[in-house]
Amino acid sequence: MLPIIFHPGHERHDPKLYFKAGTFQTHPEMPARAEAIVAELKAQGGVITAPADFGPGPRADIHSAEYLDFLSTVHGRWKTTCRDGDEVFPNIHPGRHMATRPENLIGQIGYHTTDLSTPIGPTSWEAACDSANTALHATKLVLDGARSAYALCRPPGHHAYVDMAGGFCFLNNIAIAAQYAVRQGKRPAILDVDVHAGNGTQGIFYHRSDVLTVSLHCDPTDFYPFFAGHGHERGAADGVGCHLNLPLARNTGDNSYLSSLDTALNRISAWSPDILLVALGLDGYEKDPLQGISLTTPGFNRIARAIGNLELPTVLIQEGGYNVPDLGKNVFSFLEGFETAHA
Amino acid sequence: MLPIIFHPGHERHDPKLYFKAGTFQTHPEMPARAEAIVAELKAQGGVITAPADFGPGPRADIHSAEYLDFLSTVHGRWKTTCRDGDEVFPNIHPGRHMATRPENLIGQIGYHTTDLSTPIGPTSWEAACDSANTALHATKLVLDGARSAYALCRPPGHHAYVDMAGGFCFLNNIAIAAQYAVRQGKRPAILDVDVHAGNGTQGIFYHRSDVLTVSLHCDPTDFYPFFAGHGHERGAADGVGCHLNLPLARNTGDNSYLSSLDTALNRISAWSPDILLVALGLDGYEKDPLQGISLTTPGFNRIARAIGNLELPTVLIQEGGYNVPDLGKNVFSFLEGFETAHA
Repeated sequence: MLPIIFHPGHERHDPKLYFKAGTFQTHPEMPARAEAIVAELKAQGGVITAPADFGPGPRADIHSAEYLDFLSTVHGRWKTTCRDGDEVFPNIHPGRHMATRPENLIGQIGYHTTDLSTPIGPTSWEAACDSANTALHATKLVLDGARSAYALCRPPGHHAYVDMAGGFCFLNNIAIAAQYAVRQGKRPAILDVDVHAGNGTQGIFYHRSDVLTVSLHCDPTDFYPFFAGHGHERGAADGVGCHLNLPLARNTGDNSYLSSLDTALNRISAWSPDILLVALGLDGYEKDPLQGISLTTPGFNRIARAIGNLELPTVLIQEGGYNVPDLGKNVFSFLEGFETAHA
Repeated sequence: MLPIIFHPGHERHDPKLYFKAGTFQTHPEMPARAEAIVAELKAQGGVITAPADFGPGPRADIHSAEYLDFLSTVHGRWKTTCRDGDEVFPNIHPGRHMATRPENLIGQIGYHTTDLSTPIGPTSWEAACDSANTALHATKLVLDGARSAYALCRPPGHHAYVDMAGGFCFLNNIAIAAQYAVRQGKRPAILDVDVHAGNGTQGIFYHRSDVLTVSLHCDPTDFYPFFAGHGHERGAADGVGCHLNLPLARNTGDNSYLSSLDTALNRISAWSPDILLVALGLDGYEKDPLQGISLTTPGFNRIARAIGNLELPTVLIQEGGYNVPDLGKNVFSFLEGFETAHA
């Protein structure tokens, strides 16, 4: 099996609450997700390695200094200023009309977050840094000659912007990894197969032509993240034509998905990347609680084979997937299909 | 006493909850506010008139069609889609990076609101329309020859943008009234003395040169609305120089306030408006629960005298003020001072 990178400290991020549609609910992005994947991969003979610490440089190469300062200090500020609650939640956001960054804590929380799904706990920051290290370590292995590697990242990353957390994400792991490859002189392509549009990744590279970003996802006009991931968004400035969104109808199944995936893979091939990074969400699963599209466990195998057939050096970076009982077998189905084609 | 316009149907907007700093609290913008003002003004001999219905035209002259459609239908959509809660709350906002308007209800709620302080109840829309009618009626009286009039509006309006509710506001009453005056060939100036920056009003007229907007308020770098109302924001495009923010330090008292007010009034005089609209918040009161600046009851009288001394046809439009027991006497103190100078 391909190298598996995983940091056990992911459990330092353990969000409890999720505010959605007027109510607080149990948070689906729970530590048990990663543990379920680890258990399955170990049972299948996988060997798991902890990542090195790449230091602050790579994350500062993607995220703004004020955002990183915010993330690393906000929980302490919250505990001294706000009386209630162990998790940081926003309640006001700057919107699209005017966005001066204030000094006030509540204002900065809104400035640096997109939604109420991403509570910040006392050690979320440390977990987020090691999640980015996990993606970096896997990427370094591939840049150093491995054919592929799998980064079991938690928390996920693809909804995080340059300066905003959201959608369970703090640091954009795959963007940090892609930028690390750019710094090594590589030309990376990112393929996002999570059920949600990779809006953060899109935003980060939207004006750039040195990283191709392609995302297949449930149509955001009626699905998170709503405001980005639409078909008409194709990049701006230098990046025009370097972003591709392929929105899919609700309940899209395996065959229809594979047809759209062909479009994505053709675009990637035509761009001639020298490394591929896959934002690997398994939340397109037919039994996922977030209920977007309807992929099957064998479907993930077929999708992975199609990606493996590109024969590119590839880093698989874990994003979403919230059906905990079936998550391990879905990841394994994907990895098995990928390696069969990529051998 | 000057004419007092008031719609008893304000009570159809009766918000229960207010999410701030991680907790739900009792909502301060309660119907008892308006009732306290009515009681005091009646006791002082005031005569109260209900507003006419100005129809959909004036609000459509300020707010976008899709926003008005949203406001008038969202509660019904919420009740059929979301299981819990009688009040509509957002949980995700588009932020500053990308803002396509989605079809999804939750997405549209976030698209059209700025924060979690402005729950939408079953008849909030009707109350908001009559609040705008209240401001319009008072404005029409002044345009028709009255020296001044007082619009006891509830819900307030000055935080509402062209297409976003927020800060307890849905329709921007004072902007709708100012635009009504513009349609009559007038040159209005807006003076906002609420403790919070009039960010919605600022946003609505930010690119226009036919309405002067001036706001005195607690410095937003550490106070709601955080992201706008800063001193460097002076208008854009045609509107450069037609907006003035005068941020005040926390706990600013009467004398210091009056000094900044001089700057505001000089700017207004120099602009030569033919009608003045005042966004009259009493939440700069020293005992207001929102705790921004520290004006006294006699201070409101002095502020009003200074405004009255401009000798302009003037419409006073109620905005905030959350110390319910003292609200009536503070409004009366203001009106008494204004009429003394404006007689």
